[in-house]
Amino acid sequence: MDSIQRLGSLVQAQFDAYNWKIEPKRLYAPIDYFLQLGGKRMRPILTLMSTELFNAKAEIAIPAAMSVELFHNFSLIHDDIMDDAPLRRKKKTVHEKWDLNTAILSGDVLLIKAYQELAKQNTKHVPELLHLFNQTSVEVCEGQQMDMDFEKRKNVSISEYIEMIRLKTSVLLGCALEMGAIISDANEKDRKKIYSFGQDLGIAFQIKDDLLDLYGDPEKFGKQIGGDVIANKKTLLYLLAKENATPEVLKKIAKLEKIKSKKVKVREFQLLFMQLNVPKMAQTYMDQYAANAMYALESIQVKQENKTALIELSAYLMQREN
Amino acid sequence: MDSIQRLGSLVQAQFDAYNWKIEPKRLYAPIDYFLQLGGKRMRPILTLMSTELFNAKAEIAIPAAMSVELFHNFSLIHDDIMDDAPLRRKKKTVHEKWDLNTAILSGDVLLIKAYQELAKQNTKHVPELLHLFNQTSVEVCEGQQMDMDFEKRKNVSISEYIEMIRLKTSVLLGCALEMGAIISDANEKDRKKIYSFGQDLGIAFQIKDDLLDLYGDPEKFGKQIGGDVIANKKTLLYLLAKENATPEVLKKIAKLEKIKSKKVKVREFQLLFMQLNVPKMAQTYMDQYAANAMYALESIQVKQENKTALIELSAYLMQREN
Repeated sequence: MDSIQRLGSLVQAQFDAYNWKIEPKRLYAPIDYFLQLGGKRMRPILTLMSTELFNAKAEIAIPAAMSVELFHNFSLIHDDIMDDAPLRRKKKTVHEKWDLNTAILSGDVLLIKAYQELAKQNTKHVPELLHLFNQTSVEVCEGQQMDMDFEKRKNVSISEYIEMIRLKTSVLLGCALEMGAIISDANEKDRKKIYSFGQDLGIAFQIKDDLLDLYGDPEKFGKQIGGDVIANKKTLLYLLAKENATPEVLKKIAKLEKIKSKKVKVREFQLLFMQLNVPKMAQTYMDQYAANAMYALESIQVKQENKTALIELSAYLMQREN
Repeated sequence: MDSIQRLGSLVQAQFDAYNWKIEPKRLYAPIDYFLQLGGKRMRPILTLMSTELFNAKAEIAIPAAMSVELFHNFSLIHDDIMDDAPLRRKKKTVHEKWDLNTAILSGDVLLIKAYQELAKQNTKHVPELLHLFNQTSVEVCEGQQMDMDFEKRKNVSISEYIEMIRLKTSVLLGCALEMGAIISDANEKDRKKIYSFGQDLGIAFQIKDDLLDLYGDPEKFGKQIGGDVIANKKTLLYLLAKENATPEVLKKIAKLEKIKSKKVKVREFQLLFMQLNVPKMAQTYMDQYAANAMYALESIQVKQENKTALIELSAYLMQREN
């Protein structure tokens, strides 16, 4: 796990070096606040790991790494508005701490700042990086739209759900990794492979999120357990349950959805999904995507030792408890 | 005025060629709707005029021209939310016709689409275009923030106001023009000059807007006359009035601000500002910025005939009645 810490420190040093104490204060203070809430910084670390994978120095990819992380934070600020979320990492969201307009405009400028970071890369790589970043950013917005559309729909298929999380979450991991490959002048084939690795890892990562949300250890998870079922969200667990439910079980699900007590509701869903073997099925989905990711990584033609960091990071993400 | 029509048609053809009938519908339909509301398309026309000014074919700058126009429309969609505006060009704004979340996310993806257009330019120009576009976009957000900050402040100086409109409106005109210069490989000096031309023209343009808002011909203006004073906005006219007011006149202004009848309020402010010679003073400001713009244009070392289109467009913008 040395690489995670070493590259994480590189990323943190960049965050520390930012100066957001600039005018207009009301535009930049919320960005400063939000970035200080922290997070795993998984995306920029992936960019730097990918750069090292292809035998270049991590340092040359720092602007691209930061652009992905700034983009991610922009999307969180705006998603929090759309989801009407009061808290993010146990602290107030931007629209709660300030107001709606502040959250919109600070988010906008943060998105532009992501592009500004990208533009700091070596000129010869900028057009390709920009193309990838644009494509990815559009897809993330499409994923967010699908997520919101699903809330209003009665039936969502598992393949639609996987496509939604692919767009909303996974393509950005693929992008983070491919950026490192572009910057270290990897060949086209390897670029596509590392992108695939990230995309499949991202889907597995999101399924892990769905699992942790309902079955995580409350001591370690850091968030309320069962937030998804409390909000009647159509997660993979929920869709698997519905797909494997008899008419009687469907009725039971409909009944559970109306339970007022959060504690009871969560407990009942935990039990029902267990009876339906849902966690096991979700785990199988997750393992399959994680295996696909590993397969893509294995097929990349670089020294085996270069892959250690990414293999370890993947294992950590699949075994994490928060 | 041939150039305006000819280049305007080029821009319109691009808009007609877009296909926004794509999935997710709820993300793209609002963009399709908003872009069809029209507008002067002044910004993309400026990019194309600047490209011709420096002896290149307008066609090669179409992606950059579109990127500026898409950015402008993104900023309008989000500004309409922040200003709580129900109408834009006599039609419902996006957040009114759909909802808040739709307006946020459609705006976000439109901003990214602007970058996607930019990335279509010749690779050799992309890094410089991106740098300019980023810088400008950040400034536009800063201008919007200043505008919102001013609403809550009691005192705003005229120079602060000019700086706000420079950021919120003018830098994008400068950017539109400089992009044309970059694409036609103009030299650094001329690039800066055409940017200055656009920036000063933009300030003059905004002052014209302030004047038209209160003194435009209701038949020709197309919007309600006096919208700014009805909303007690701190326009140049208002700030000039306050700066030149005796204590008694200041009291009168405070009184007028509280008038409930829109019609009476507008009439009273029209009269008071006339008595204080405000329209004349604002006109002097406008003429000064327009003259600075012309001076910058004159100093550019290209054939005089190349400048005709921009000179005519400037004259049109200063004399327009809507």
